[in-house]
Amino acid sequence: MCSPLAPINILVTIDANYLKPLQVMLKSLFLSSPSEIFQIFLMHSCLSPSEVNEIDTFVRYNGHSLFEIKIDERCFCDAPLTKHYPKEMYYRLLAFRFLPAQLDRILYLDPDILVINPIKELYYTDLSGWMFAAAFHDILLAKEINRLRFRKYDIKEYFNSGVLLMNLDILREQVDEQEIYNFIEENKNNLILPDQDILNSLYSKRIKKLDEFLFNYDVRYFKSRQIVAKKRLSMDYIINNIVILHFCGRRKPWHNNYSGAFHSLYKHYEKLTFNNQFHI
Amino acid sequence: MCSPLAPINILVTIDANYLKPLQVMLKSLFLSSPSEIFQIFLMHSCLSPSEVNEIDTFVRYNGHSLFEIKIDERCFCDAPLTKHYPKEMYYRLLAFRFLPAQLDRILYLDPDILVINPIKELYYTDLSGWMFAAAFHDILLAKEINRLRFRKYDIKEYFNSGVLLMNLDILREQVDEQEIYNFIEENKNNLILPDQDILNSLYSKRIKKLDEFLFNYDVRYFKSRQIVAKKRLSMDYIINNIVILHFCGRRKPWHNNYSGAFHSLYKHYEKLTFNNQFHI
Repeated sequence: MCSPLAPINILVTIDANYLKPLQVMLKSLFLSSPSEIFQIFLMHSCLSPSEVNEIDTFVRYNGHSLFEIKIDERCFCDAPLTKHYPKEMYYRLLAFRFLPAQLDRILYLDPDILVINPIKELYYTDLSGWMFAAAFHDILLAKEINRLRFRKYDIKEYFNSGVLLMNLDILREQVDEQEIYNFIEENKNNLILPDQDILNSLYSKRIKKLDEFLFNYDVRYFKSRQIVAKKRLSMDYIINNIVILHFCGRRKPWHNNYSGAFHSLYKHYEKLTFNNQFHI
Repeated sequence: MCSPLAPINILVTIDANYLKPLQVMLKSLFLSSPSEIFQIFLMHSCLSPSEVNEIDTFVRYNGHSLFEIKIDERCFCDAPLTKHYPKEMYYRLLAFRFLPAQLDRILYLDPDILVINPIKELYYTDLSGWMFAAAFHDILLAKEINRLRFRKYDIKEYFNSGVLLMNLDILREQVDEQEIYNFIEENKNNLILPDQDILNSLYSKRIKKLDEFLFNYDVRYFKSRQIVAKKRLSMDYIINNIVILHFCGRRKPWHNNYSGAFHSLYKHYEKLTFNNQFHI
């Protein structure tokens, strides 16, 4: 396990559509853990040099380090893609192959996230014997859909892959790449959330369960009629305790027509990100 | 007029119920104008020494100065009071009497406010010839009620006194204290928002009109069915341009049962205020 004095390793994988949201997510991460040093690993296949430079400048200006990992375009070229699930989403499954050998853990974060409290407890979760740590979203609808789709794979819990802590030593030893390719080949017409489906189908028993409210809070839980969480949290509790707000679903807080309980907070972080206001 | 290098003078007048909201308001003010130095003048009659000390410690810890102005309890003792409008609300009308002679301007701010963008433009508004600068809330309901109540005073516009920039030189010269006492005596059964009613009845023609959206934005304008603003602003515009969010009305964002579009943002500032997070 890393020493608490070591840098915190963060993995992100985006295409050009997520350049701005990625910076907002990173800004919120930096601000909520002001005494940590971060190493950001940016895996991609299609960002331009100027786009990578934009992220690099931003990360360095905030006092942290960026490492670019450019992936060969032929990887996963037969995997199913949709508008909302670009190819980069697969990369996290095989990230361990592309990361420096001395890294023993890394935290993957989706770009549609705000980190609003310190990340340390999540990052240093004990991973002994586990491949990953993640939260499963206990939404009846999602569980039912996925139980039906993947019944032959004996999935008891359906994890969300948007916040994924990786035990790189175990992944290097035990992940069989061919198994992933076979799974994609067998299921390519049946994948809705491709990398998340693969993760759950092949590795759900190797994933340590995180508290979904603290570490991957689906913002739609707050006062939604469509998606009802088992636990109702107050705004006071959320702001003071929740580490990660996840803007799941198709409606995103950087879209013009978005509305939601955390819209003002998201726009606040967006302002801090792009107005170079480093005091707040 | 003050030089832009001089400290910015802020007037606040609270009772013990508003100790916490006052600190949140001040924290948002300090964070949104990080290069300014503030002098906070706290007028009160009934705060305990430990309560004043709490505010003083907070303001000094944030790098600014507090000046206590304790008011004789006999001032305004016959003025009408309600639970929601404590005696301190009158103080701003005669604040000029209690402030140091060298001050030429001061900005009064209610405690149910967030300042989310730099205050400089508002503070240095040209006040030549004006007693005050304030915004009037162009709400049909409020205008109608107040037109009826004060028809004999020929009020064309009804200003909100929650954000009130004062020209202290003119106030010292021209405000007739006896006129205020006479007005209270004549109208004490008819005052709903006491100090605001007095301000509008006696001085509305001496108040320079501020942009109500930029400098005193009633948060109930945002998606309310009850109160319809003439102009609909997007969350993006509000967060990047509006200087002052004013949580008008009885429902306040520090109450447990509050809900509203700026609840998450308010709770965020509340966390920054009381968790000693000086990095964000």
